[in-house]
Amino acid sequence: MSNTELQVSLAERSYPILIGSGLIDQAELFEKAINGKRVVVITNTTVAPLYLDRLVKSLSNFDVLTYQLPDGEQYKSLEYFEKVNSFLLEHNCARDVTLIALGGGVIGDLVGFVAACYQRGVDFIQVPTTLLSQVDSSVGGKTAVNHPLGKNMIGAFKQPEAVFIDIDSLSSLPAREFAAGMAEVLKYGIIFDREFWQSLIDNKASISALDNEELIRIVRRCCEIKAEIVAADETEQGARALLNLGHTFGHAIEAEMGYGVWLHGEAVATGMVLATHLAHLRGYINSADFEEVKQTVASYDLPIEKPDSMSVADFVKHMKRDKKVQANVMRFIIPTKIGNCEIMSDVTETELESILA
Amino acid sequence: MSNTELQVSLAERSYPILIGSGLIDQAELFEKAINGKRVVVITNTTVAPLYLDRLVKSLSNFDVLTYQLPDGEQYKSLEYFEKVNSFLLEHNCARDVTLIALGGGVIGDLVGFVAACYQRGVDFIQVPTTLLSQVDSSVGGKTAVNHPLGKNMIGAFKQPEAVFIDIDSLSSLPAREFAAGMAEVLKYGIIFDREFWQSLIDNKASISALDNEELIRIVRRCCEIKAEIVAADETEQGARALLNLGHTFGHAIEAEMGYGVWLHGEAVATGMVLATHLAHLRGYINSADFEEVKQTVASYDLPIEKPDSMSVADFVKHMKRDKKVQANVMRFIIPTKIGNCEIMSDVTETELESILA
Repeated sequence: MSNTELQVSLAERSYPILIGSGLIDQAELFEKAINGKRVVVITNTTVAPLYLDRLVKSLSNFDVLTYQLPDGEQYKSLEYFEKVNSFLLEHNCARDVTLIALGGGVIGDLVGFVAACYQRGVDFIQVPTTLLSQVDSSVGGKTAVNHPLGKNMIGAFKQPEAVFIDIDSLSSLPAREFAAGMAEVLKYGIIFDREFWQSLIDNKASISALDNEELIRIVRRCCEIKAEIVAADETEQGARALLNLGHTFGHAIEAEMGYGVWLHGEAVATGMVLATHLAHLRGYINSADFEEVKQTVASYDLPIEKPDSMSVADFVKHMKRDKKVQANVMRFIIPTKIGNCEIMSDVTETELESILA
Repeated sequence: MSNTELQVSLAERSYPILIGSGLIDQAELFEKAINGKRVVVITNTTVAPLYLDRLVKSLSNFDVLTYQLPDGEQYKSLEYFEKVNSFLLEHNCARDVTLIALGGGVIGDLVGFVAACYQRGVDFIQVPTTLLSQVDSSVGGKTAVNHPLGKNMIGAFKQPEAVFIDIDSLSSLPAREFAAGMAEVLKYGIIFDREFWQSLIDNKASISALDNEELIRIVRRCCEIKAEIVAADETEQGARALLNLGHTFGHAIEAEMGYGVWLHGEAVATGMVLATHLAHLRGYINSADFEEVKQTVASYDLPIEKPDSMSVADFVKHMKRDKKVQANVMRFIIPTKIGNCEIMSDVTETELESILA
């Protein structure tokens, strides 16, 4: 399969998502997407040795600076937000600079937030290198940093100029991170598309073997779903909230365990299973689907049980700060069957106790 | 004159500006403008003893928290941005909270930026208490914090739900701050409205005596001009840049001297005179207008000469980081006559030397 292109339709902020093989080396893609002369590539010390030189080579017609962060969720912080802003100011970057986020979700979210705020907004391009960022965080314009009291609590909606998804980068991804990305892939199936879900069960062997065509197919389908949702509800006033399936539990796990201890995708995987358990407890989803969710998530080497050390109170403490809280009521996304989700806002602590027992 | 109302027209982000006497005590204004139950009033230790209790009394139907910052431009920083975000998280404020900025431009800009970023955006209301914030910073949605390397370098465009301008608060304003606010008032005359400018000369006695009707008239006219410009060019792609008359020089003075040493309005006053000097040097504005600008600015007890300690190099260093820089070229707003301004992008260092000599 050759490159495949999608469009995120947001009027004057519309942008293309290009998915394919060897995109990092295609200078013409970047030349078409960048408006000014100055480019700052921001990446981390793990990704840099693998892809930075190749990307910089594709930017030979620009005045390029590079900045490397340490690798890890704990650097998606206001401290590093400030460091990147300082770097841009020290190098006299003006409002016509373009930032390129080369890396996973941490880099994409942090660089996107810098792009939203530096001089009140500059252009940026996403070059996601992890499965998780390719199917989720690089598309849709949610940017943020974490706060010790909650994940993604400080951020902005900022759409990129383009997203270039080079599927080749998945071959360098550690197995644990690939699995974490699969959690978000599975999520799209549970929320919106049972046929896609079934294909993830049927084609598990070729997906796990990193078959190129198979990867392009699944990344494209996830981006399609996400692009459609984002176009309909950019700032999460409605349907976009469904994409948070598993995230209320997941964010609590990440925050309580310390950022980076559980990978985001791992926490979401467990969170999806817990949300499905909640749905099953209420009789909203049947036992067969609940079992299928558990088994499929586990089959992709993802955790399906909460950390032993976490109590119900530990969960509730973080959930009360969840961004979906309205009028002091926690809201959960729960599946009613594989392929359909709803928002539930009357969950009791007793119910949480029985699924977290 | 009773309350007078304007509208800033920005489609679904339109909002009213109400100007009048005793607005802080009118509970019904706040009840109409606030959507949720929770309100956090953010102010500083100078303004709090004067107005906080009265404002909180008007919010008796809400669940109200208050937060006080120290008073001064140096607190419009990422450090205090983080402190306010932490306060909101510690108190479990959700996305349905409304922030109220009670104070001058520092409070308005900082709180607006927090409102733009906290959980990716919450509502906020501006209650500006200084002349400068009433005629300029509270209207139009520019929010930001300063960076040691430049003023307002990190921020966002975030429109408030409403702006309530209580003209009574000007009676508690120190004379130096009132004068600083007049710098921005004079600015509107120079850029857009010679008739208004003339009224500021003719009615100087009643303005300086804080005549209520006169103050409402000038604040309303400034807000009218600003609302019109903002509606036409929200994110400063074009005409809105004209509002930066005097600011390229002014920001350099503020940054070089240390934030808070020169008041923003004082730096802008000197900056306007320097920009007019630049225009005169080129023959773009006649000597009579140049003299009139100098004398009128001085008549309102504002500085018209740069700090002795600042060299041309000191100015250039900061100007190169100005947000109006494009393709490494500095851009200046200059008056071609009183009532009209243009953007000039080919200023040489030699020219800067001759006006700064």
